[in-house]
Amino acid sequence: MLEELRAAIAEANKVLETSGLVRLTWGNVSGIDRDRGIFGIKPSGVPYADLEAAHIVLVDLEGKQVEGELNPSSDTKTHLELYRAFPGIGGVTHTHSVYATMFSQAGCEVPCLGTTHADHFHGAVPVCRALTLEEVEEDYEANTGKAIVERFAGIDPMAMPAVLQLHHAPFTWGKNAMDSVKNSIALETCAQMALGTFQLRPECAAIPDHILNKHYLRKHGPDAYYGQR
Amino acid sequence: MLEELRAAIAEANKVLETSGLVRLTWGNVSGIDRDRGIFGIKPSGVPYADLEAAHIVLVDLEGKQVEGELNPSSDTKTHLELYRAFPGIGGVTHTHSVYATMFSQAGCEVPCLGTTHADHFHGAVPVCRALTLEEVEEDYEANTGKAIVERFAGIDPMAMPAVLQLHHAPFTWGKNAMDSVKNSIALETCAQMALGTFQLRPECAAIPDHILNKHYLRKHGPDAYYGQR
Amino acid sequence: MLEELRAAIAEANKVLETSGLVRLTWGNVSGIDRDRGIFGIKPSGVPYADLEAAHIVLVDLEGKQVEGELNPSSDTKTHLELYRAFPGIGGVTHTHSVYATMFSQAGCEVPCLGTTHADHFHGAVPVCRALTLEEVEEDYEANTGKAIVERFAGIDPMAMPAVLQLHHAPFTWGKNAMDSVKNSIALETCAQMALGTFQLRPECAAIPDHILNKHYLRKHGPDAYYGQR
Amino acid sequence: MLEELRAAIAEANKVLETSGLVRLTWGNVSGIDRDRGIFGIKPSGVPYADLEAAHIVLVDLEGKQVEGELNPSSDTKTHLELYRAFPGIGGVTHTHSVYATMFSQAGCEVPCLGTTHADHFHGAVPVCRALTLEEVEEDYEANTGKAIVERFAGIDPMAMPAVLQLHHAPFTWGKNAMDSVKNSIALETCAQMALGTFQLRPECAAIPDHILNKHYLRKHGPDAYYGQR
Repeated sequence: MLEELRAAIAEANKVLETSGLVRLTWGNVSGIDRDRGIFGIKPSGVPYADLEAAHIVLVDLEGKQVEGELNPSSDTKTHLELYRAFPGIGGVTHTHSVYATMFSQAGCEVPCLGTTHADHFHGAVPVCRALTLEEVEEDYEANTGKAIVERFAGIDPMAMPAVLQLHHAPFTWGKNAMDSVKNSIALETCAQMALGTFQLRPECAAIPDHILNKHYLRKHGPDAYYGQR
Repeated sequence: MLEELRAAIAEANKVLETSGLVRLTWGNVSGIDRDRGIFGIKPSGVPYADLEAAHIVLVDLEGKQVEGELNPSSDTKTHLELYRAFPGIGGVTHTHSVYATMFSQAGCEVPCLGTTHADHFHGAVPVCRALTLEEVEEDYEANTGKAIVERFAGIDPMAMPAVLQLHHAPFTWGKNAMDSVKNSIALETCAQMALGTFQLRPECAAIPDHILNKHYLRKHGPDAYYGQR
Repeated sequence: MLEELRAAIAEANKVLETSGLVRLTWGNVSGIDRDRGIFGIKPSGVPYADLEAAHIVLVDLEGKQVEGELNPSSDTKTHLELYRAFPGIGGVTHTHSVYATMFSQAGCEVPCLGTTHADHFHGAVPVCRALTLEEVEEDYEANTGKAIVERFAGIDPMAMPAVLQLHHAPFTWGKNAMDSVKNSIALETCAQMALGTFQLRPECAAIPDHILNKHYLRKHGPDAYYGQR
Repeated sequence: MLEELRAAIAEANKVLETSGLVRLTWGNVSGIDRDRGIFGIKPSGVPYADLEAAHIVLVDLEGKQVEGELNPSSDTKTHLELYRAFPGIGGVTHTHSVYATMFSQAGCEVPCLGTTHADHFHGAVPVCRALTLEEVEEDYEANTGKAIVERFAGIDPMAMPAVLQLHHAPFTWGKNAMDSVKNSIALETCAQMALGTFQLRPECAAIPDHILNKHYLRKHGPDAYYGQR
């Protein structure tokens, strides 16, 4: 079932490693078929190089595993909450990429310090609070997703396809599995650039709105003219 | 038309990725045939690995697309303004390379802190101002080029083949497409070295003029003796 | 003798280089057969690319070389002390990986600033004191191992499979040779993340215990549910 | 003539690139046949990937080119001065490797902050002064070598096979061409480690003498026991 989707998810997971976003098995990508209400996700702890389409685990929007021999990623319930709450998204990526994780650990949002950022994220990438002891004990991974959704009250997840969880690491999403990986690459690079920009100018502030909007909209707006259309 | 030029431009664009200057599709290289007044440039949003000479889009100095099926880079008008204003240049590169972008975002010029820099850039690499709202709305990419040209009043673009646009990223140029890429590699490395030099010695100043001139001129002066001639 | 163990050790040593943990020949991995009381270790100064299972030197728990033509790693006695004192470990890795070595040189423990750390190390990675002149002169490598064991009084080495030796570099251990290498990769990445986190927020403190315990235990506890089981 | 030496020098030059020490053509390695008093060196400006043994230029200790069609490295006279003054060395490497160059630009010696450093350099790597205008105009490259030799008055170049030239970059040397490259790799890594160590602990001082001597001598002393002998 969903052979093409599973192949795309396997491929997107491999890019986590080849792009340098993850070491060991510190990351996972999922992608969803909205018509069927089923998403596929990386099996837990499997090396990226060994991953095949057949290994991708299929899960429905109730969280029930509907196909696959292997255990799904331990972060599956977080992905599930995001798919439920953000109907426009088609893929989710979680990594512990080094620079984005520094900002997560420090509890600092990544402000929009330049057009590289504006090309992908419409404003500062927000930080999501840590879970309480009760939330961790009740259902850690599901409550992580719920806390992200809570943080996005009033924020359009399509214009801000990334979040940094305090003490933890980033989650990104996108139109599909590979698009969510690209947003993780963009976030990681913007975080690295921001760290160095702050080193040069600690008081550096966000870019003017008219530059932010221009760059965001020329790629993502109704009259976007970036790429081949 | 201009098969050899297009092949050289495709090759130079691929080096953006293989040299680590760009991630995703964050950069573009062009090269010009001055006799015909036509330049070739990367198509917008096409992955570097897939790029072939036949994909390179040809544009004349009025900005008219004269050959190619694909849309040219969204930054084409910036390249155009540089070719118009700087008659000695044969290639232009735009990237969001990480360290040069940090300096662009911070609005800090890259001072000449050593001979690596002096070998390529005759003095500090300047910062170009951001555009106003009116300039962005009127014609963002063309006005970016015009602002760079304005910044170079009194500066020889052949001796300073690079600029950092505030809030944005670097542009470099050179004798041809590949030469402009080499200047982007040099700028990126010099920016990284400068960041670390400032970390070790925040008050570090530019090198003495006699060292700057010696290194610049032994590679680029009338009596240059670097390389095979 | 112990052909399979030697092959696994050779493979784990090669990963030191391919994963970027070591340059030149700055690192070594060993693995033990607890039933026979014999461990295998990298020969001294041999390039990783040239390493074959047959080169792995076998040593018993008295420190006697029992098989192998080549000299074992100069750090062999340190490995020996760790195998003697920590009966639960099956592999030991020593590297001079860049970021973990920075913390060793500075004499700073790596605090648990995030879940990447908590997934591998149950708390701050401790610093072990330097040896005295007398200890160096008497038996440098054996006394290095003894100082590490002394530092672990009251610490469970299975929950904290890493140490930073002051002025020197890290040692890690694990269930087997490859597992000890994975802990070196985790330590190196956590050290890099910690350096950047401190740059963003110098006063950053360890994560709350309930997050630390959740992440550590979901991978290593009796009810662990990470990976395929 | 000297086919084997030239092959070794070509190989050592290629390692500059494959090890990440240089970008573009920013570095050169030479090696000497002491019996004949002839050294071979990289030709100027030739890409490393294209380099063959036949390209290596042979020069005698008067500085006369004795074989080779191509121009030798523009830094040839600096190598010549080092071979003349330091009779024990068999190879010389010059790079603009990023971290060592930061220290050169900042005019900061690299102190011995750990055993990685002590394994290769017996103490702090010294900084050599910049040349005066007169020295630059008279003979820049020869006077660079003379300034290094002047700096080494009272220092054993075999125990300190590296120097940082102010405003410029490092030179290293060794028993032969490849050994001098290994010292450049060691210097670059130690410089990176030192930069991070200072970030963690700005007041960090050199390691105790008994640790420095132990590590240096177990690799380089009369009773060295590192490696296969």
